[in-house]
Amino acid sequence: MTPHADPAKGAAVKAADRAHVFHSWSAQELIDPLAVAGAEGAHFWDYEGNRYLDFTSGLVYTNIGYQHPKVVTAVQEQAGRLATFAPAFAIDVRSEAARLIAERTPGDLDKIFFTNGGAEAVENAARMARVHTGRPKILSAYRSYHGATAAAINLTGDPRRWASDNGSAGVVRFWAPFLYRSPFYAKTEEQECARALRHLEDTIAYEGPQSIAAIILETIPGTAGIMVPPPGYLPGVREICDRYGIVLVLDEVMAGFGRTGTWFAAEHFDVVPDLLTFAKGVNSGYVPLGGVAISGEIADTFARRPYPGGLTYSGHPLACAAAVATIDVMAEEGVVEHAARIGRDVLGPGLRDLADRHPSVGEVRGLGAFWALELVRDPDTREPLVPYNASGEANAPMTAFATACKKSGLWPFINMNRTHVVPACNISETEAKDGLTLLDEALTVADAHL
Amino acid sequence: MTPHADPAKGAAVKAADRAHVFHSWSAQELIDPLAVAGAEGAHFWDYEGNRYLDFTSGLVYTNIGYQHPKVVTAVQEQAGRLATFAPAFAIDVRSEAARLIAERTPGDLDKIFFTNGGAEAVENAARMARVHTGRPKILSAYRSYHGATAAAINLTGDPRRWASDNGSAGVVRFWAPFLYRSPFYAKTEEQECARALRHLEDTIAYEGPQSIAAIILETIPGTAGIMVPPPGYLPGVREICDRYGIVLVLDEVMAGFGRTGTWFAAEHFDVVPDLLTFAKGVNSGYVPLGGVAISGEIADTFARRPYPGGLTYSGHPLACAAAVATIDVMAEEGVVEHAARIGRDVLGPGLRDLADRHPSVGEVRGLGAFWALELVRDPDTREPLVPYNASGEANAPMTAFATACKKSGLWPFINMNRTHVVPACNISETEAKDGLTLLDEALTVADAHL
Ligand SMILES: Cc1ncc(COP(=O)(O)O)c(C=O)c1O
Ligand SMILES: Cc1ncc(COP(=O)(O)O)c(C=O)c1O
Repeated sequence: MTPHADPAKGAAVKAADRAHVFHSWSAQELIDPLAVAGAEGAHFWDYEGNRYLDFTSGLVYTNIGYQHPKVVTAVQEQAGRLATFAPAFAIDVRSEAARLIAERTPGDLDKIFFTNGGAEAVENAARMARVHTGRPKILSAYRSYHGATAAAINLTGDPRRWASDNGSAGVVRFWAPFLYRSPFYAKTEEQECARALRHLEDTIAYEGPQSIAAIILETIPGTAGIMVPPPGYLPGVREICDRYGIVLVLDEVMAGFGRTGTWFAAEHFDVVPDLLTFAKGVNSGYVPLGGVAISGEIADTFARRPYPGGLTYSGHPLACAAAVATIDVMAEEGVVEHAARIGRDVLGPGLRDLADRHPSVGEVRGLGAFWALELVRDPDTREPLVPYNASGEANAPMTAFATACKKSGLWPFINMNRTHVVPACNISETEAKDGLTLLDEALTVADAHL
Repeated sequence: MTPHADPAKGAAVKAADRAHVFHSWSAQELIDPLAVAGAEGAHFWDYEGNRYLDFTSGLVYTNIGYQHPKVVTAVQEQAGRLATFAPAFAIDVRSEAARLIAERTPGDLDKIFFTNGGAEAVENAARMARVHTGRPKILSAYRSYHGATAAAINLTGDPRRWASDNGSAGVVRFWAPFLYRSPFYAKTEEQECARALRHLEDTIAYEGPQSIAAIILETIPGTAGIMVPPPGYLPGVREICDRYGIVLVLDEVMAGFGRTGTWFAAEHFDVVPDLLTFAKGVNSGYVPLGGVAISGEIADTFARRPYPGGLTYSGHPLACAAAVATIDVMAEEGVVEHAARIGRDVLGPGLRDLADRHPSVGEVRGLGAFWALELVRDPDTREPLVPYNASGEANAPMTAFATACKKSGLWPFINMNRTHVVPACNISETEAKDGLTLLDEALTVADAHL
């Protein structure tokens, strides 16, 4: 399919949107949503005939790109067979999706509780940990995003929490490692790792280990900045959790299902959590789906005692059929390996080259199809290009950068002073290189603010 | 399609389910999920060749029945066009679904915030009310179910809350009217209504009206027992809310979209809430979808100030396409009017007749395709057939009743000491009558416990 201009239809879609659709995270009258007509692979297009290379994968979820024909067909077939059925029954695609996921999750995470999305996955992981341990508190990192339902948003570190923060009963926040802006005044990765672990240990000691149900971490924090932790950090956290009987929850809603060049990001660190949350990439969001992969020990807690949680669409057949097809496609087409390769051979080198040539790029970090560029006003002081949580005029430099990207046909992911390069995991080498060229031009706009 | 026995396939589906699927609200080793092979209209069938008349509509959500061909086709077409796209954009089916919903919601509830299901709808309604008013507390009824994420489960009255109840910061519970088991020692509907309103007023006075953001009520409480409130109750609550600047949230996740014989249950009482939550019937659950319909006044609060909430799949195109088709089908086929008629002419009279002939039926109540039978040990004392929140041996009489239904080919909805008659809203008169006949037989099992 190719873009086919139809501005009148675009205007009608936009008008109905403005009249009736209330958008996430937005001041409703200050936004101007682009009317999108179609999408395929790593591209989408509007009603004016503009085509965009999508460096966002939606909200970092269309890991196999838009409209993959095999997954589309699987969804269509399932819709014709059995679109929906209640969660208390055994359904072929529900069983099969669970089996395929359990086969890929690390260790003995062999039972799958399905939800509709990431926030509900985190909600249920938090509940499982609390009921399993009988302890009230959960530790979570400041630089994190875990979703927007009450427990998930209170576990979230970023400013989107503030308006819903009820004083955070049962949540304790700590600082995870991030060498580029080290909370621990570290100079090396080893130092950052050791100090971050000590900070966590100290926090646990002062909070009381017996009161802590779980530590939740994004294996590689996504929205907060794609900060790959030092190699020793997660093994160190695992060891601390084991020592105190604390449940380790790794949130792989964004990092899972190929994004980092492995099925799950935990594989990079050889760590097995007790609970692993997923969504997004599990079926590239063709149908809403999320879930929790559960260890044998925690599943046992609920073997003869009811698990106190549930939802109407747990294990939705249409969503599960999309997961089965997506996992099959990813395996058949080597999407995970492709993401590793595109990161190693194209995006990594290409982005580092941009950093060398653009003084506004303070740091490049990431792996697979999961990269962040930290934009700064001054490479020496590392002062961010815009202040933390800026809006309006204060955020103008980032807005100008985003506008430049869009004008050139590249749709960028923007968060605070960063742009993330998070395209479909199966983006071609040519598309990735095209994107880097467009980014190169747009970065001159950011450079102008130095 | 007709049942086609394939016990080997059924056994395989069941085995994979037992190995990998973690089920909602269940002790995993104490359940024995039926493997379901297919469904159509008001029926489904297993792999043994057994066909069941579904008196549950799944979890009261397949309002147009299973596999409606027009909605299946719409889902298939949308999957082929644009299965998914991120929430920040204007998308034709997203706009159209919002428009069709806004057209049907009462009053000026004209902006639609989409979620994946009911719990997230309630979460967002609670947040909107709190941010809009700047007040912390929400009042909710003991006999209620609002979902299982942290805020939704804390707003829930039923025992499924207990394991996740964190002390309920910001939640105050009260008693809503229920004449059959009156919390107010009332003898008539008028008395129950007046006393329930006075109880609510008193609770507000002692909690401090200035501290109360919202009152949330299921317009007609569903899971808790389908208790149609006295005619004056909701108008009385509306008036109290207006007096104190409290937001009225009506949760129509279960009661909305035709279930009660009107598009929304609020129409029966001529009441317009400030926020109305929906899910389930909006697209009969063919694709996960829920949402909040928002009044002009509350939408204005977020006109120039960001709404602090969101989710990856808000306004999911596939789910919205299913909503558009479902609403069209309901309008074209007169499903809402049919539900009203089947309730008035078939289910109501038929169930009252059963009550007359079965001493175990303490009360029949409901309307449309939304009915509850209260099963009792003693019609005079109204002692429930099983104690509140019974399990195991204590629950045996209800288990025996459910087993009798299933043996006869009727799949019953069971909650505590009640069976709910909540079939597809477009169930035929013949099917409804067949179901009543099967229920008649099964009730003799309940009668034996008197
Ligand atoms: C790591 C992580 N957890 C949870 C969520 C919440 O997922 P959802 O938006 O599907 O509720 C997100 C969403 O971006 C995420 O990145
Ligand atoms: C009135 C009401 N609200 C909310 C919910 C929660 O919906 P979900 O299970 O889709 O999260 C339900 C579910 O039964 C409900 O009946």
